[in-house]
Amino acid sequence: MAQGRFLNELLTTLTRRYATRIRPGEATPGLQAASLLEQCQALLASDSEVANLAQARNALTTYDLLTEPDRRAFFQGLAERFAPDANAIAEAYQRYAENPDGSNAQALNRASRSPRQELLRRLNTPPGHTYALVRMRADLQRFARDAPELEAVDADFIDLFRSWFNRGFLVMQRIDWNTPASVLEKIIAYEAVHTIQSWDDLRRRIAPADRRCFGFFHPATGDEPLIFVQVALTRGLPQQIQPILGADNPDASALENAETADTATFFSISNCQSGLRGISFGNFLIKQVVEELRQELPNLKHFVTLSPIPGFAQWVQERAVEENPPLDEHEQRAAELLREEDLPGVLSEHEKELHKPLLRLVARYLVKEKNGAGLPVNPVSRFHLGNGAEVHRINWMADTSDNGLRQSHGLMVNYLYRLEDIERNHEGFATTGKVACSREIQKLLRQSKTVTPA
Amino acid sequence: MAQGRFLNELLTTLTRRYATRIRPGEATPGLQAASLLEQCQALLASDSEVANLAQARNALTTYDLLTEPDRRAFFQGLAERFAPDANAIAEAYQRYAENPDGSNAQALNRASRSPRQELLRRLNTPPGHTYALVRMRADLQRFARDAPELEAVDADFIDLFRSWFNRGFLVMQRIDWNTPASVLEKIIAYEAVHTIQSWDDLRRRIAPADRRCFGFFHPATGDEPLIFVQVALTRGLPQQIQPILGADNPDASALENAETADTATFFSISNCQSGLRGISFGNFLIKQVVEELRQELPNLKHFVTLSPIPGFAQWVQERAVEENPPLDEHEQRAAELLREEDLPGVLSEHEKELHKPLLRLVARYLVKEKNGAGLPVNPVSRFHLGNGAEVHRINWMADTSDNGLRQSHGLMVNYLYRLEDIERNHEGFATTGKVACSREIQKLLRQSKTVTPA
Amino acid sequence: MAQGRFLNELLTTLTRRYATRIRPGEATPGLQAASLLEQCQALLASDSEVANLAQARNALTTYDLLTEPDRRAFFQGLAERFAPDANAIAEAYQRYAENPDGSNAQALNRASRSPRQELLRRLNTPPGHTYALVRMRADLQRFARDAPELEAVDADFIDLFRSWFNRGFLVMQRIDWNTPASVLEKIIAYEAVHTIQSWDDLRRRIAPADRRCFGFFHPATGDEPLIFVQVALTRGLPQQIQPILGADNPDASALENAETADTATFFSISNCQSGLRGISFGNFLIKQVVEELRQELPNLKHFVTLSPIPGFAQWVQERAVEENPPLDEHEQRAAELLREEDLPGVLSEHEKELHKPLLRLVARYLVKEKNGAGLPVNPVSRFHLGNGAEVHRINWMADTSDNGLRQSHGLMVNYLYRLEDIERNHEGFATTGKVACSREIQKLLRQSKTVTPA
Amino acid sequence: MAQGRFLNELLTTLTRRYATRIRPGEATPGLQAASLLEQCQALLASDSEVANLAQARNALTTYDLLTEPDRRAFFQGLAERFAPDANAIAEAYQRYAENPDGSNAQALNRASRSPRQELLRRLNTPPGHTYALVRMRADLQRFARDAPELEAVDADFIDLFRSWFNRGFLVMQRIDWNTPASVLEKIIAYEAVHTIQSWDDLRRRIAPADRRCFGFFHPATGDEPLIFVQVALTRGLPQQIQPILGADNPDASALENAETADTATFFSISNCQSGLRGISFGNFLIKQVVEELRQELPNLKHFVTLSPIPGFAQWVQERAVEENPPLDEHEQRAAELLREEDLPGVLSEHEKELHKPLLRLVARYLVKEKNGAGLPVNPVSRFHLGNGAEVHRINWMADTSDNGLRQSHGLMVNYLYRLEDIERNHEGFATTGKVACSREIQKLLRQSKTVTPA
Repeated sequence: MAQGRFLNELLTTLTRRYATRIRPGEATPGLQAASLLEQCQALLASDSEVANLAQARNALTTYDLLTEPDRRAFFQGLAERFAPDANAIAEAYQRYAENPDGSNAQALNRASRSPRQELLRRLNTPPGHTYALVRMRADLQRFARDAPELEAVDADFIDLFRSWFNRGFLVMQRIDWNTPASVLEKIIAYEAVHTIQSWDDLRRRIAPADRRCFGFFHPATGDEPLIFVQVALTRGLPQQIQPILGADNPDASALENAETADTATFFSISNCQSGLRGISFGNFLIKQVVEELRQELPNLKHFVTLSPIPGFAQWVQERAVEENPPLDEHEQRAAELLREEDLPGVLSEHEKELHKPLLRLVARYLVKEKNGAGLPVNPVSRFHLGNGAEVHRINWMADTSDNGLRQSHGLMVNYLYRLEDIERNHEGFATTGKVACSREIQKLLRQSKTVTPA
Repeated sequence: MAQGRFLNELLTTLTRRYATRIRPGEATPGLQAASLLEQCQALLASDSEVANLAQARNALTTYDLLTEPDRRAFFQGLAERFAPDANAIAEAYQRYAENPDGSNAQALNRASRSPRQELLRRLNTPPGHTYALVRMRADLQRFARDAPELEAVDADFIDLFRSWFNRGFLVMQRIDWNTPASVLEKIIAYEAVHTIQSWDDLRRRIAPADRRCFGFFHPATGDEPLIFVQVALTRGLPQQIQPILGADNPDASALENAETADTATFFSISNCQSGLRGISFGNFLIKQVVEELRQELPNLKHFVTLSPIPGFAQWVQERAVEENPPLDEHEQRAAELLREEDLPGVLSEHEKELHKPLLRLVARYLVKEKNGAGLPVNPVSRFHLGNGAEVHRINWMADTSDNGLRQSHGLMVNYLYRLEDIERNHEGFATTGKVACSREIQKLLRQSKTVTPA
Repeated sequence: MAQGRFLNELLTTLTRRYATRIRPGEATPGLQAASLLEQCQALLASDSEVANLAQARNALTTYDLLTEPDRRAFFQGLAERFAPDANAIAEAYQRYAENPDGSNAQALNRASRSPRQELLRRLNTPPGHTYALVRMRADLQRFARDAPELEAVDADFIDLFRSWFNRGFLVMQRIDWNTPASVLEKIIAYEAVHTIQSWDDLRRRIAPADRRCFGFFHPATGDEPLIFVQVALTRGLPQQIQPILGADNPDASALENAETADTATFFSISNCQSGLRGISFGNFLIKQVVEELRQELPNLKHFVTLSPIPGFAQWVQERAVEENPPLDEHEQRAAELLREEDLPGVLSEHEKELHKPLLRLVARYLVKEKNGAGLPVNPVSRFHLGNGAEVHRINWMADTSDNGLRQSHGLMVNYLYRLEDIERNHEGFATTGKVACSREIQKLLRQSKTVTPA
Repeated sequence: MAQGRFLNELLTTLTRRYATRIRPGEATPGLQAASLLEQCQALLASDSEVANLAQARNALTTYDLLTEPDRRAFFQGLAERFAPDANAIAEAYQRYAENPDGSNAQALNRASRSPRQELLRRLNTPPGHTYALVRMRADLQRFARDAPELEAVDADFIDLFRSWFNRGFLVMQRIDWNTPASVLEKIIAYEAVHTIQSWDDLRRRIAPADRRCFGFFHPATGDEPLIFVQVALTRGLPQQIQPILGADNPDASALENAETADTATFFSISNCQSGLRGISFGNFLIKQVVEELRQELPNLKHFVTLSPIPGFAQWVQERAVEENPPLDEHEQRAAELLREEDLPGVLSEHEKELHKPLLRLVARYLVKEKNGAGLPVNPVSRFHLGNGAEVHRINWMADTSDNGLRQSHGLMVNYLYRLEDIERNHEGFATTGKVACSREIQKLLRQSKTVTPA
């Protein structure tokens, strides 16, 4: 507790600096990629760390003023010009080949390192620049989609970001109705699973006694969330998302007192910074939220998700026209019915016909359908299974929003984090791709005639 | 201002974690280096980031329990076993030699990278580990003195520390009488220039209205200072250190109101973490303190040091017996006199004889005496000149402590930071080794018959 | 700065306590006023301060559960039962009459004090109770409107609140977009002058660089604002409220950089707690905001309001039918025109006819129309004049909202706080009721034929 | 938790203000009591609250500059001149006598109130003045000792302080090694029971894992402690103070892990502000510390003190020469022996002879020896019994310091706070003066032949 006093002061200082973020308009406009590349070379050439501060500041101001084509040209320049010295590499390799010891390996490693890494490090020197570099990489990723030569540049960003955003530097924060509005409006903007419609909607998500929201932050990027997760505290595993979102319940809260809950349901997890793609936070966040909640609410017994199944509806239709392995006749019939426009109508009218086949199909989709790497094609499934959860239960008419009906015919899945199994589940998944399932899911899989047993 | 509210919360969290630092005694004792190396290999082999947390925690606990010989053996193991794969290097080089583009350079760079870097990154995952790794490197440096094969390991530490302790992540904090005692006792312990004798002595250094102390801290190492500097606010450039240290003045403070000062004198700067040797903070700290003070006290006109001259007395004696270039006869006489035991006696009795020769010798020592790299042999001089200061004035009987008399016959020097000259001074020093001097110093140098003009 | 570290901790503690505010439902329902009065008597009778804590907590829980009629009955009971002891008063007076010294006066003072004061003090003992008592007085005021016997009870509340909410205990806070949402929603609710329509509307009021909002808070009532004021930074004195409110300007902000402003316009000031009526905060708040803004923005030259004129339209109509002093013919004509329903139409169609008479009437209304105490009838005018401002300028079509047209035919007034005149203006107003006016207003008054010169 | 964010900001502001405390030297020196009394009258006469701020500031500055005799004269003036209006009192009484209702009682109450109360309230208006007024009362108390006419003035201070320092406004803070040095040096200065010798001594008291220290603070007096208590966590009830103080144990700490303790021993409680004499804090503090510790350390079973017995040795000697009731022969002999200078020698040499008689005498002294009000003469005993503790055990050679030997022949007492008995103990003590005792103490009392049974 007490150590906090001093550290609080630290942050007061951290804070002040964000005020000095680069303001567009301070540098002469009309500058071009070439000029910025020159600035970067000058920054690398200078050996005065103090002078670097101003050079780095100017460089990022220039970058801010570049047009889209100029930015692309700048990254191209980064890819082309900042190559390591070929002669130095050849010499270093020669020495290593003669005597392959640690020192010579290291010398070769240094010789082959692109000067871009040092450049990025220097660009990061002034306070407040870390976030600017995260946004810069977000630009880069856009360009890299159709320019594979930019991948080497991206790899340098990743290398540094893995150091800078090391788990040890992240700070988990609870986000609630006492959080500053400036942070909350980012939560509204970044929520990626179940859109937050308004401030009232947000209030329903974070203010009630049976809701929790936690995010990771980094001291150098201040109040920019990196990732956040929303949790509902319930009695029993929830089967539907709409009551949790409070669409039909202005108060949204079912429990007056969080201490009576036995289940914590993770119902939304959103990455906030596309510039940090490839740096994983989600697994750490879920782990720490579980620890935090167990400490706060010792009565909690179950940690579970209520997750969407993006891609399921599309997969059903694709499967329906493929030959091998074919859908059985009930499943075929279901696929046909679901080509109708009026999904709510179809689902309620034909519930009897659709219910079982669809559940079987979901089970198969989540558990059996693998990508090239032998892992589930469904990304949400891949994430939670990789964290050690099991596919636990499939819920009928669980998300009746337009989006929910369209992407997964209203179905949602509970992934269950059983604390005593997490390690084993993770291990099995990581080494052999084994997907942990509840008996219920296993039963659904067995009923799927077209599936070969696991 | 307001952003601070949210960030303050960040730190409350940061804080709590320091409580969970590894406690010795929790791991089974008697473990050996070999076992720790195995733990490290297992940590590298595992692909579960969440599992890594526990593995990293255990590994550092084990390290804490190792005896000194076991630690040395552990670092030897790090140097020997974590070599990159020689075949992979050869292949990567082959591809690069055929097509030396950015991608292939990067592939070679990765192939030649020691797995130690990834190991250190993973060891840093649990909150609170960063400082443990800093202390680990402090151990390593001790062993590396007589074991050059450990240098490659040290280089990996440096690489990571340069990323983690990037200037952009440091936070400057004022240290004063309202600082927690737990931080202040570290200031007492780390002060390296003018020993702090007691809490009362500390109070004299930081509490008076005309004293300032600032340090750099890092969010991940909490309340451990990395470096700090002490400042006295004065009217005019100070000539003596004892009045500033308050040895003869219980209150120490000369000015009741800091706003009447025209000069800020840096009289002590101490690096705190030997494990961070090679990561430079001092130049940034001085720069930021100057900015902070100019903002707080717009009346300040001069930024100057009152610096010790370690090594000067020894140099005089060595010079006196060397032939070329010889000391002149007055200087020889001075060197002889100063071989006496009773230095205070000699200095007061022979002041007339000693004063001018000694001043000439100091000027020569600071400005002309270079090391192999063509830079001044005196490290304090090298630091301030490298930051863009000039050698401004030499002060007679400026440090009359035992240590001051012994190391520099009581002489001290003011290095002056003239804001408009800093850039040019630094530039000249960095490119040609040119030492910026005041007219007074230049005159002293001209009077030194045995010195060839600059 | 540094002292803040420790005090921050204070508040962490203050904070935790608000979590423990009384929750309805914890006490047995159906309790009645009589029971609560008994609890209060027991609380007064007990001499264990520690036992008082629980008694006070129970009493306020009981109060929370009372129905409206029971609350009224409770206050009636407070008025009747907690009378001081008549015999004790008689005796104390006797002694005082014989020897009217300080001690005897004090003894009489104590004898005549209602035990309610001690009761309220004891009710305030548990943390978090202060705000509960403020709300209790808000109830009391409602009942007291038609129950003059409750005034003595109210007077006891006022006596204590004047001590507890002494200026020295208030803390001014800036309110901006980094303020917690839980505080901001109260700002939306409490704004009394120009309704805040939505969170977007709020953002326009507090987020732009040229807006400021400050409030007074009290450590014991936590994040409940007591009063707040909104400020627009402008170049020149503003003439219209709609551009400031941003109704026609999604961004609302006119100045990108607050430092280019020369004028700070107070355009809304709202008291938040009806339970604190009679405890004045507004004058202190304006004074401190002026100081804060002058420190932050040394370029500011003018401190002015853009104020509504509630009651003006009604006064015009009342005046129009009165005989003495009569309106002149133009003014009569204006009054007739303004009886129309379609005020915007009338005002634009007959602007020429209406402009001058209305301006004259406003000047007269604000400056000459006094209440029984010889002070202006208009409460806004009374407030700012009492603080030392002058009636500076009347603005045509300054508030074109429905409410603005209805209450003052779209007119608004600038009260000017000229720092060098404030003391003299206040003095004149306080001693002789003299109203400070600009030359422009004085000219308008002279043009009003029906007004006798001041 | 989250509400803390906003409140933290509150305190940053509270803090800044302490910087502006009155500095001596700003007012013209040589001012006298008469002048200050005039300033006070002017402050009362003015009706501008804003003007009052400056007047109050000037008045307190003047007070700071007064010499001791002038201060005394000033208080005399306060006593004489600020009497309520005798005619107004007479009239108000007349009305009350005719119709003794609540309103008239209140009117009489107001008429008889000294204007000093309003004066003190106005003096408190500027931020930071509360503490100045506390120190002012400390002066007043000094003078009042031999000037009974000042008591009425003191009563006005008490009245206000009881409102301002209401329990609901106090904040409990843990004090430990992370507390700012500026607060800790006050702890060293204010410790009243077992002198803190040095910073190292302080560290032993508050830093070890098995020590706790808590204090009450008030938002308006910032980092000035009002009262604090020191706690040792032990296994079993402690019998000696020296091991706790660590005099013979550089580390002082006996338990490495506070969670293994079953007993919390309060071994020192110190009031800090003589200016707040008469406002009780200790009972609330002990209660809240008990609550805090039970929450933090659920294993704690016993809450006990290890308390000095000031006055005991003196009482023994006085008793020895009194006739009625006489000491028995063993007790007489003990009293004689203890007149020796060499107390340690006597106690060890004659332990056998002294042990039983002394224990009996202590029991009698603490339990039976009453003051005029029928309460124990020993103030420490009175305090803890009043809080509901029982006299639990007397410890031989428990305080072997000079002071301990001199005041109580090395004996100390444990008062035990048995949670389930506190209310009943307090009740009995408060209503009938009944002293709660353990069986052990009761037995000692029965053995005392000269005591009549309770």
